[in-house]
Formats: sequence, C-alpha cells, structure tokens
Amino acid sequence: LEPFWAYFSPDSDKATFSLENAVFCIMGLVFSNSLKLKSSVYYCDLFISCLDSHSDGSNYAMSNGGGGAGASSSTHLLDLLEEPIPGVGTYDDFHTIDWVREKCKDRERHRKINSKKKESAWEFTKSLYDAWSGWLVVTLTGLASGALAGVIDIAADWLNDLKEGVCLSAMWFNHEQCCWDSNETTFAERDKCPQWKTWAELILGQAEGPGSYIMNYFMFTFWALSFAFLAVSLVKVFAPYACGSGIPEIKTILSGFIIRGYLGKWTLMIKTITLVLAVASGLSLGKEGPLVHVACCCGNIFSYLFPKYSKNEAKKREFSTRVLSAASAAGVSVAFGAPIGGVLFSLEEVSYYFPLKTLWRSFFAALVAAFVLRSINPFGNSRLVLFYVEYHTPWYLFELFPFILLGVFGGLWGAFFIRANIAWCRRRKSTRFGKYPVLEVITVAAITAIVAFPNPYTRQNTSELIKELFTDCGPLESSQLCQYRSQMNGSQAYPAGSDAAAAPGVYSAMWQLSLALVFKIIMTIFTFGLKVPSGLFIPSMAIGAIAGRIVGIAVEQLAYYHHDWFLFREWCEVGADCITPGLYAMVGAAACLGGVTRMTVSLVVIVFELTGGLEYIVPLMAAVMTSKWVGDAFGREGIYEAHIRLNGYPFLDAKEEFTHTTLARDVMRPRRNDTPLAVLTQDDMTLAELQNIISETSYNGFPVIVSKESQRLVGFALRRDITIAIENARRKQEGIMLNSRVYFTQHAPTLPADSPRPLKLRSILDMSPFTVTDHTPMEIVVDIFRKLGLRQCLVTHNGRLLGIITKKDILRHMAQMANQDPESIMFN
Amino acid sequence: LEPFWAYFSPDSDKATFSLENAVFCIMGLVFSNSLKLKSSVYYCDLFISCLDSHSDGSNYAMSNGGGGAGASSSTHLLDLLEEPIPGVGTYDDFHTIDWVREKCKDRERHRKINSKKKESAWEFTKSLYDAWSGWLVVTLTGLASGALAGVIDIAADWLNDLKEGVCLSAMWFNHEQCCWDSNETTFAERDKCPQWKTWAELILGQAEGPGSYIMNYFMFTFWALSFAFLAVSLVKVFAPYACGSGIPEIKTILSGFIIRGYLGKWTLMIKTITLVLAVASGLSLGKEGPLVHVACCCGNIFSYLFPKYSKNEAKKREFSTRVLSAASAAGVSVAFGAPIGGVLFSLEEVSYYFPLKTLWRSFFAALVAAFVLRSINPFGNSRLVLFYVEYHTPWYLFELFPFILLGVFGGLWGAFFIRANIAWCRRRKSTRFGKYPVLEVITVAAITAIVAFPNPYTRQNTSELIKELFTDCGPLESSQLCQYRSQMNGSQAYPAGSDAAAAPGVYSAMWQLSLALVFKIIMTIFTFGLKVPSGLFIPSMAIGAIAGRIVGIAVEQLAYYHHDWFLFREWCEVGADCITPGLYAMVGAAACLGGVTRMTVSLVVIVFELTGGLEYIVPLMAAVMTSKWVGDAFGREGIYEAHIRLNGYPFLDAKEEFTHTTLARDVMRPRRNDTPLAVLTQDDMTLAELQNIISETSYNGFPVIVSKESQRLVGFALRRDITIAIENARRKQEGIMLNSRVYFTQHAPTLPADSPRPLKLRSILDMSPFTVTDHTPMEIVVDIFRKLGLRQCLVTHNGRLLGIITKKDILRHMAQMANQDPESIMFN
Repeated sequence: LEPFWAYFSPDSDKATFSLENAVFCIMGLVFSNSLKLKSSVYYCDLFISCLDSHSDGSNYAMSNGGGGAGASSSTHLLDLLEEPIPGVGTYDDFHTIDWVREKCKDRERHRKINSKKKESAWEFTKSLYDAWSGWLVVTLTGLASGALAGVIDIAADWLNDLKEGVCLSAMWFNHEQCCWDSNETTFAERDKCPQWKTWAELILGQAEGPGSYIMNYFMFTFWALSFAFLAVSLVKVFAPYACGSGIPEIKTILSGFIIRGYLGKWTLMIKTITLVLAVASGLSLGKEGPLVHVACCCGNIFSYLFPKYSKNEAKKREFSTRVLSAASAAGVSVAFGAPIGGVLFSLEEVSYYFPLKTLWRSFFAALVAAFVLRSINPFGNSRLVLFYVEYHTPWYLFELFPFILLGVFGGLWGAFFIRANIAWCRRRKSTRFGKYPVLEVITVAAITAIVAFPNPYTRQNTSELIKELFTDCGPLESSQLCQYRSQMNGSQAYPAGSDAAAAPGVYSAMWQLSLALVFKIIMTIFTFGLKVPSGLFIPSMAIGAIAGRIVGIAVEQLAYYHHDWFLFREWCEVGADCITPGLYAMVGAAACLGGVTRMTVSLVVIVFELTGGLEYIVPLMAAVMTSKWVGDAFGREGIYEAHIRLNGYPFLDAKEEFTHTTLARDVMRPRRNDTPLAVLTQDDMTLAELQNIISETSYNGFPVIVSKESQRLVGFALRRDITIAIENARRKQEGIMLNSRVYFTQHAPTLPADSPRPLKLRSILDMSPFTVTDHTPMEIVVDIFRKLGLRQCLVTHNGRLLGIITKKDILRHMAQMANQDPESIMFN
Repeated sequence: LEPFWAYFSPDSDKATFSLENAVFCIMGLVFSNSLKLKSSVYYCDLFISCLDSHSDGSNYAMSNGGGGAGASSSTHLLDLLEEPIPGVGTYDDFHTIDWVREKCKDRERHRKINSKKKESAWEFTKSLYDAWSGWLVVTLTGLASGALAGVIDIAADWLNDLKEGVCLSAMWFNHEQCCWDSNETTFAERDKCPQWKTWAELILGQAEGPGSYIMNYFMFTFWALSFAFLAVSLVKVFAPYACGSGIPEIKTILSGFIIRGYLGKWTLMIKTITLVLAVASGLSLGKEGPLVHVACCCGNIFSYLFPKYSKNEAKKREFSTRVLSAASAAGVSVAFGAPIGGVLFSLEEVSYYFPLKTLWRSFFAALVAAFVLRSINPFGNSRLVLFYVEYHTPWYLFELFPFILLGVFGGLWGAFFIRANIAWCRRRKSTRFGKYPVLEVITVAAITAIVAFPNPYTRQNTSELIKELFTDCGPLESSQLCQYRSQMNGSQAYPAGSDAAAAPGVYSAMWQLSLALVFKIIMTIFTFGLKVPSGLFIPSMAIGAIAGRIVGIAVEQLAYYHHDWFLFREWCEVGADCITPGLYAMVGAAACLGGVTRMTVSLVVIVFELTGGLEYIVPLMAAVMTSKWVGDAFGREGIYEAHIRLNGYPFLDAKEEFTHTTLARDVMRPRRNDTPLAVLTQDDMTLAELQNIISETSYNGFPVIVSKESQRLVGFALRRDITIAIENARRKQEGIMLNSRVYFTQHAPTLPADSPRPLKLRSILDMSPFTVTDHTPMEIVVDIFRKLGLRQCLVTHNGRLLGIITKKDILRHMAQMANQDPESIMFN
C-alpha cells in the first residue's frame, strides 16, 4: 500500500516530468483512487498533521532554522579563513524564517556582485543579469498567469456548456462560439442554432417535452458529478496542496513560513486542471482565489529558473517573497481585469513585509498579466474586465439608505458565513466525516446539481449570473428580469430604460432569485473548504448581487407606484429612469465580498475598475464601510484569517492590534516553575556535555552565555547548525573526541597539555541575537516581531539572560489573552 | 528693531487671530518690510539656523526627548502610587520623536477608554467619540482641502487674467466667466467679448497697435511684479514656513521630527494666500506641492480641535501622523482630481510608518476632497480632473521607440534639474546672495514676465498650456497647433483628425514651443527654492508636454510624408489618424515628472486617472520606467530627498538600501579615542554628581547602569526628564539636598543614618531601552531604526554597555560611507 502514486509525492520539486511518469500518472489515477478511498491517506490535512508532529514536545525556540548563516555575514569578517560549513543556514519544512538574517544574506550577495562588477566585462554582464533577473521573473510571471487565466476561462466555459449539450460542427466549441455563425438574428433565437445540440436532442432526438427535460437533467447531473469526481481525485492523488483557495497559505508563506511544495509545479499543474473541472462542475465556488495561487506558483517556479536562487534555498527567500507579492497582484489582475485593484489587494490583504519595494514590480506584473489576458480575449468582448457595465443615470442621496441596508446585509452575511463555515470545517477536521473527502465532494456536487438545474439562475454559470444582475435593462435586453410593462405594450412614449411597472416576468424572476439566494447561501458554506480548488469571491458576489438586484427592483417599483411620495417627488418623475437595479446589484456584491474578506480600499478600487466611473464610488464606499463595521462587530477576523487560525499556522497578523498590558517577562519561557533555560557556555563545555544538552532537549536553538555565574549573553546557536557542525568536524578534523572542549570565543581557551583538540564553533554563532529587557511591554515586542520578522528574541534583565520569547509563544499568549484555550487552537 | 511683526512669530500656535492682530498685521506689513529688507532676518533659513544652534556641541543622544513617559506605561505597573511628573515626556522643537514610546502611549490611552466603556453611558459615548474622532478629522480635512483648493483655483485664475485685463461688468469675473454671456459664437471670437477690456483698451483706449502692445506688456509685468512682491513679503513677515513646496518638510515630519508651527494656522493662511499670488505672478511654479502642504495644515489644525490630543502634545503624535498621511492624499487628490493616485502618492512618496493602517482613511479623505472640489467646479467643466482628455486612436508598437526616447529625455532633465537646482540652492544658502530673498523673487519674477510676454505659450497659464498640449486636434480646435493643411482647404475627403501636412501655423508654433521649452527649463531651476510657495509638478509636466508635443508632431509629419516607409506601411495609411501628438505630450509630461520626483506607480496612476483609459498605461509605464532608470544612473535621489539632505533634516530614507558591511561598533559613540560614555549608576550617585554630569555634557540622554564595575545596563534616562524631575522634587519634597543619594532602583539603597533623604527617579527611567550587540551588522541596525522609528539604541558586548548609536550617528555614517564630508552635509 505504498504504490505508484507515492512517486508523485507532495514534495513535488523532486518529481521530474517524463513520459514514464505520465504513464505512471494514469495508472496511479486508475488504481490508487479505488484503494485510497478507504485508507484515508494524506490530504490537505497532510500538512496539518506534519505541523502536529513538529510541534510536539518543542517548547520554545521551536520555530527556528537558519540564523547561523546570517551571523556568518558578520563573523566572516573575523573568520575569513574558515570555510562555511555546508548545510548551515537552511530551513526545515514547516519552520519559520528569520527575515532579518535573510535580508542580510541577500544584501551580502548584492555587495559581492557589485564589488566584482568592475573586474571584468563578464562580471559586469552578470551584475546586469542579477539586476534584471527580478524584472524578468516578474514579467514571466505576468505572462504566464495571464495565459493560464485565459486558458482556464476558455476551458471552464467549454466544460460548463458541455453539461447542457455539445457542438456538432466542432466538439471543442462552447455554446456561444458554436452559434457565432448562426443565421438567427433575434436575441431570443440566437442561442438556438442548429449546430448546438442539447443532450436530449442528441440521445432522444427530441428537444421538448418531459422526457427530454429529464434526460437533460440527468446529463447535467452526470457531467457535474464526473467533473467533481475527477477534480477531487486529481487533487487527492497528485497534489493535496491544490485544494482550497490558497490565499490563507500564501499569506502565511509570505509572513515567513516554509511549506515545501505548496508553490511547486505539481501544485500548479493540478490546480490549473482541477480549477477548470471544479468551476465546470457547478459547485458554488469561484476561480479568483485559486488564480492568485496559480500566479504565485508561476512566480515561485520562475524564480527557481535562476541558478543562484535555486542552489541555496535560504538565499532566494526575500527575492521570492517579492515575486510572490507581485504574483498575487497579477492573479487578482487577471481574475477581475483590474490591475490597480490587484496591486492594492496584494498590498492590503496578502503582503506582509515588503509592500513598498514591490509596489512597482507588482504593478508591472499585474499589467502584463492583464494585457496577455486581453489579447487572449476569453470573454469575446475585447474587454479587460469580467463584468463590464455602463450606467447612464446618476444616483440620488436618498438611495444611500438602501445602499447602507445592503452594507448591513453584507456584513451580517460575512459574519454568519465565517462562523458557519469555520464551524463546519472544524467539524470536518475533528470527526470521522473528514476522512472521506471524495465522497463529501461528490455529495455536495450532487446536491448542488440536482437543486440547481430547475432554477435558471442557479443552473447558469455564476459569473454570467452576476453579469446579468449587474447589467441595466436596456431596450435590447431580452432577459426575464427586464420584462416591464411599458416595453411590452408600447402605448406610452417614455424613453426606453425608464422606470415602469414590472410585468409577471419580473415577479417570477424575483421568486427564482430569492430561491437562488437561499440556495447559494447554504451551498457556499458547505463548499468552501472542500478538497477541490475553490474561491470565495464569485459566490459571495453572486449572493450580494442577487440581494442587491431584489432590493433594487423593490425600490424601483416603490418609486414607480409612489412617485408623488415626498421621498421620490423631487427627482423621480413618471417616465424618468431614476433607479438603476443593476447598480444595487453591484453595491450588494461589493458589500457581501467586503463582509467576507474585510477588504476595503482594494475592493472599492476593483469594483471601480469594473465600472470605470468615479460616480459610483460613494455608494460603494458607503456599503463596503457599513459591511466592514457590521462584520467587525461580530468578530474582527476575515475569512482568510479565520482559516489561518483554524489551520494553526504561525501567522502574526499585522493589522490586529495587541491591546494588553503584559510585559515580556510574563510571556517568556521558562516560566517561574519551569526547568531553567537550556544554555551553552562560551568556553567551558565539553563535546559530550553539548551533545547531552542537544539530545535531552528538543529546542531548536540555544543561547550562549559567558559563564553560568554571570549569565551574560554572548550569542545564539541553532540546534540544526550545531549538529551539522559537529558532524562536519568529526569527518574532517582529527582528534575531536567526546571530552574535547567546545568554545565559541575568538581564541581557544588555555587547556591542560594532555586535553584533546578543542572544537571551535564560533562560525555558527549568531553574535547579534535580538534582546529585549524583561520590562518591555509586550505590545512593543509584538511590534518588533511583526516589523522585523523575528523568530525568537532573548529576554534580559540588567544585562543577564533571563529567558526567550518565540513567535509561537507570542501567538499562544495572544490566544490566552483572548480567552481561548491556547493549546486547542495553536498548531492543532 | 524687534517690532510689531515679532508678535506674529513662526510659533504660530500661540498667536490667536483677532481684529487687533489684523491691524497689527497690516502695520507690520507696511513698515517691517522696508526695514527688514536690509536686516536679513529669519526666513525659511530660520529653522536651518535653529538646527545649527541645536546641533552645536551635541555629540550623541542628541535627538532625544520623551522616552521617559513611554516607560511610565510599563513602570506604572510598578509605581502605581507615584504621580506622573508634569512635563515629562514632551518634546522640544527640532527634536526627533521616539515612535515606539509614542505608539505605546496611544494604546495605553485606548485601553483606558475601552476599560471604562462599560462603566456608564457617558463613558460609552466618550469611547464612541474617541473611535470616531479619527474619521471626523479625516472628513473635515477632506472637506477643508477640497474647499481651499477650489478657492485657490478660482482666485488664481482671476488674478492671472487680471494681468491682461479686467471685466467691466463685474470686476471679480475672470476672462472666461466675463465672456460667458457674450453673443459671439465662433471659437476664435468667443474670447473677445465687449465686457472684457485689456489694460491697453482701458488706459489708452485702443486695442491694436504697438502702443497698446507696450501698454499691455507693461501692465503684465507690473502686475506680475506686484503679485510676486506681495507673496514674498507676506511669507517673509508672517509665515516663513509657507515658502517652498513643503513636501520635503512633511516627509521629515512624518518620519518623526518636530518643526513647531510648520503645520500651524498661520502657515495655512499665508500659504493659501501667497500660493494664489505666486501662481498668478506667472513664475514658473505650480500649486500641487503647496496644496499637499495646505491639506496637511488643515489635518493638523483639525486634530488640535480634539481636546485630548491638544492637551498633551506627545499623545497626539501617532494620531496626527495618520491624519497627515490622509491629508497628503487629499492634497494630491484635489491637485489632479485623482483620488486613487493621491492615496498611492501618500503611500509611495510621503508616508513613512503607517501606510497600511491609514490606507482606508487616506482613501476616504481623498474622495471627500475630490467631491468637494467637483461641486465647487472651479474649471467650469464639471470634471474632477485637471486635464481631462480623450483619445480615440490606439497606439502602435513602433511608437514605443519615441516614447522611450521621451523617457530618456525625462530622466536626463530630472537629473540635470536636481543637480542644477541643488547647486543653486546651496549657493543661495552659503553666499550673501541668500540674504535678499525679496529682491531675488522680484528679479526672477521680472525676468520671467519680460521674457514670457512675447511668446503666447509662455504668457498663458502653465496649466492651460499643458491642457492645450495634451488635447488632440479635433475639428473644433482653433489653436495654432492644429492648423493642418487638409483642414485649411477641404478639397480632400479625409475624416477630420486624420494625419495631414502641417501648415505654417504648426511650424511657427513649433518654434515658439522650442523657445518656451528652453525658457521653462532655465526659469524652473532658479524658481524652485525661492521664498514663495512653489510646486514642481506643473513646470515639470509643462517641460515634458512641450518636448512630447514637438516629438509627436515630428513623428506625425514623418509618418505623413513617408507613409510608405516600412515602419509606417503596415498601419499608417494616407488619411488615417495614426499618430496622436497629444498622447506624446502626456507621455513626455509623465516622463519629466518621473525624472524629477522618481515616483513611479503613483505617477502612472495619476495620469491614468486623467485619461481614464487603460490603453495608454503601457506607453506611460515605458516612459516613466525609462525616465527613472536614466535618472537613477546619475544619482538615486529625487528632488525631495535632495532638498531634505540640503536642509540637513534627520531623515532616514526608507527606500534607500544600506549596502555597507560595517558593524554597530564602527558607528557607535564613543569612538576609540573619545572620552568615555557619560553614564549614570543606578544607586550610588549623589544629586550633586548627577547635576555635574548634566551640566558638563550636552547629551540628551544617559544610560543607567548597575555599577561602574559591571557596566550592566539597567535603563535610559532623558536629560529633559531628569531636569524636570529634580526641579519637581526640590519644589515638592523636603530634605532634598545636594548630597542626597539619587537612585533608580525599586527600593532605596541602605544609607548611613545621618544621610539626607534620597531622591527616587525610577519613574522617569525607560526600563526597556533598545539594545544591539556590537557585532550587529549596520544594515540590521538601520533597518531597526527605520521600521521601528527609534531615536537611539544602546550597544552592548556580552551584556556590558559599550556605547550608543543615534539616528544622527547613522546619518553621519551613511554620508561618510558615500564619501561625502559628513560635517558639511549634516545639519549645516
């Protein structure tokens, strides 16, 4: 039971793609799924369990790994003759990065290149290449994410239409493309071209009647289930990390945490394919979040193309972080066709440390991606944006009231959704239910398909639904939503588009929309968190757009029938076009999205880029602000932060304020009754003592002090580095024995004549560890951790070492202060 | 010679406006100017000289002032019974703020309000008020800056037209408003309405002929000189801080430096008035930078309206910084009608510490300001933006070549301008020449007016010139720039706006534009830095727009005459409108502005908001990027950073990378041969010894150690706080004598029975000073200073205190590393 597919492990960087692998792929797919369904392997929870095993027993200095090499940049000056020890300064999986050291190393490399620049033409070329490689990666990322977004759009469209029928003239055409050559010119008939056959027509040979309805119903459900099954199987077998939206993980990675393979090429490939399948399966999910993940995978893979970055993983940290910020901007840019909104999204929601430096590159990547997408032209309208709308009427001050109501709805929906979804996800994680992810996806897909088919608003693609709801009723609009009386009998001479009494079509549309609203609300809660790629933007916007359109039509009818009421008298005469229900839908969509994600500026800018008019910014802002405030009243976390906490990632939110009065000494370990801190002394320990300390404790690093008596701090050494250095010394240096003296000082201590050769470990000592005094308020400590990206910090009192604070200690303390059970929440 | 006007000192916060003051104002203006011209008083250099006196003799721990009260937030826990000493924790003028402490204090206040919230309805209301006061201030700032921008626009327009003539029907109408009722309908004649009289018509009674030309010339120069004289006099007498663009100073203030009165109400009032005068005087300057200053003044004044902020200056620091970020966004928003660009400008160029937190409020302020400006409608076109243009033709790939050329021009211009302007400003500061600012302004204004009048492109308002250059030639355009042959004789049936042979009008326009370009380049160098409010955006954009339009017409004619050449053959047929010279002007304007300020994203977004089309972002980006790279090749500083350095403000640029390998011990004081660090011991000094140390040194703070022998660090005490505490103790406590023991410990040391009562100073001790080890690389130290906003940092080795590093030490070290003479550059 450790078969073929184990070859395609999540550690995808090692897997190389070849024909042989491809054959294995198919075999693995065919066989392993049937086997694995029962044996409940891995999954997205895979790396949660990894976290478990790593956090077990590690008390402090847990999140460690590579400070030593950073110190080498300074100690190099002292120990120029010593060679660096291979392996020192790298990180383990699921460990936190020390940003300060990493930045240091990056600059060190820069300096070397700069100083060599003048030596020769070749070195100069290399320095130019180095300076331009960042731009190159960003450009490639933009190109690739634009192209992938285009492919995904086209493929998802085609597969989506495949649920209803097939194009006889060319299988690979979707419904719209199939009917482009059709001779039918009226709008209602345009979609019914002879080349396009529904499944009922093809199988039963009849287009109408209950038999054909049932056949279409069956085929719709069949295809939906097939797509869903294929998607979840691919994710399960080849790339467990491809599930979900990916934004919580990318936030965590950008904050400095290592999840190997999360941005690898397998994840990219599988996420792209399964995203198409998941969208086509009709599940209540969107492709916007996963597109950000896809773009980040592209950025990460391209940054591997540069040998200097791929050789030493630690070296490429800062670089790849910058690329990831740019990539997430590109992802949103292609998702909505909003480059500026994408940059602000990256700034507001995703990025952690380097927002300003990456601003320019993010903008560039977002633009490149947007232009590639436009030249692919997946929507066939040569528009950059997904939902391009133009409104012709201004809004009136009174309308702010319904807009704010929509904001309240958005905030309530956001708060409700986050609670319900988190509760459901927690249930999935803690009960046996979570062990059958494939079954779960199929069940949800089946319910979605069966309930969705009868209602035209849920049957159609969610993006198209949003587009229809956003669009204002014009004279050419044939939708049911636009069946107003005055347009049916043209007796009155009011201009087209003016407010009018609703015809029965509108009323039945209202009913169907209400049902669709309830359906979407319920299904989205159960869908987000399934083991398929799933974004939240589109479902949230759909819910908001439905609610908004309903409110908009209600206000419109109110204004029509009571146009002499004091509220409407001033500006809404008979026959005027004073209410735009499409605008309500847009405001509602922004409010609901704001309630779920708690984004503000980037959201308004994204929607502003959709409409292109500054006019409607005030309604949007009013609704988004209301939605955020209402949502915050029920809990300050957005859905991404909630999922980060659910999964127990060590993420220190930069936005949340630390509001307690505790001091560093209240948080540091060891506590009063704990065993004393495990420390090393700088020159009076033997190798045996050192190894003893290492084997007895599980800490990831040890402070080095002058002597047990003075407790004065010298530096900090990492467990991993010490182990590697000892092994290295044993292999290369002769005369190293168990009673060899270990010293971290500049010069060897004076030893008795017969003692064995001492072991010098100064090169792995970080001689500039961060320290705070025990009286430092925790809010300052938290600020330092956030802004500098520390992993640990030593605590002193009057110059003596007292204890240590790690990122995990801070997170645990914050959970404790928020009256949550720290052990159940952190790293569960 | 210390007369009336001294009453209106730059310390304007104390000056209250009353009728009495107003009378004094006028008297002061009339008398003092004639007197002061010779006595070379104050001036914008005033606060440079302040800096001189403060920096003299202060070696380290110079930039200090208020850490003690921050510590009180932590020591409060220990000394709950001790009352805070009044005055402790405030700052002197021209001192640097310690951000960490300030943030701490702000949160302390928040916590108090939050904990009281549940006590009573009144406290709850107060907490609501507290939560909303930020929004209130931001809203008020937006309203005020929008209104002021509208007033400035209208007044400057009126005064500008006053140079040419006057409206007989209503004095206060400008040329355009005067002619609104005119019956003339053709475009050429519309401006010549009977109500509007030029000065020649009014005085000589004739509109044509050399006599009237000379009279108009004379009146033009006369008014220009009057406006310039009035502007410089007002600035000189009432608000020296109102000169210049203000952006360098605002950047410095936001980075945490105190310049009292720089954002006061006197500065606001005088800057508003003199900005109108300076713009109307025809000097080569713009109003965009000063508008940012005006908006920041509004923000600062409104934040004073809230009693809790105005009472304790230290308390309002973080708050006002946030408001200032928002205010600068509002300033750019009204300057260009580009709210999103304004927010990005604030983020990219101005703000230092809190970009993300203020994003939402900045956006809100920018929007409010933009909408107020639009409802005032100063341009009479109900457009939000200054230069609204619409282009109808796309651009072609080949055109990227001239666009990049324009970028190179922009970069070269930027580099040249920065060098020339800084050289001139340095000359002004160092020679006697700078002692006659009024004379200088009048000279420059006279030269500008005399040279500008004969050339129609320099005579008109610079904003109007830019607008004309941006606009594409349409069928209704009557400007000289649009005199193409095909439009003159309509024999050919090409559509209007198509490329055509240029008529003589275009050629003479080209000559005049070339002369205008040379004139603008020279005058701008001498104008920026004059003692009047002066922005750089508009002159830079004008230079770029002129160059761009010239290039654009050249390319257009090339394409017209060689339309079968291989470059043009594909896309530029005869009669097609393939080249848009207006677009070249826009690209050139962006490139030149980019070269001078080195802004990137915000600049592109501002121009994007002007045109509203994503189409033209690629040409803009290409030009702006080229311009930045070319400019950076000659020196990485933008004009604002260059002026900051010229003025010697302690500004640590967040964008510039520290690329040297020095360690903390190379930078810290004392150096090897210096006198040892002045330190206090925690419990074995007498009051006399303490006072002796304080009087003998000029340091602003002193580390407190356990004892001279151990050198272990306990905390940090500020000079100002110690002085205040001693005086306070002398007044209130009895038995404090010169041989009283001073102690910083928790409990009084055991003393002989006959010794006088000891003095406890623990409450002013900052018990959590920042420390780094002597081996810490300076790049990390610089990073800490930037990100945390420190003022000083103590250096330890193995737990012993070694020295201290202040912000000033770092700046001096950086100047040293850049091979500049540190003493001549810093704080000169």
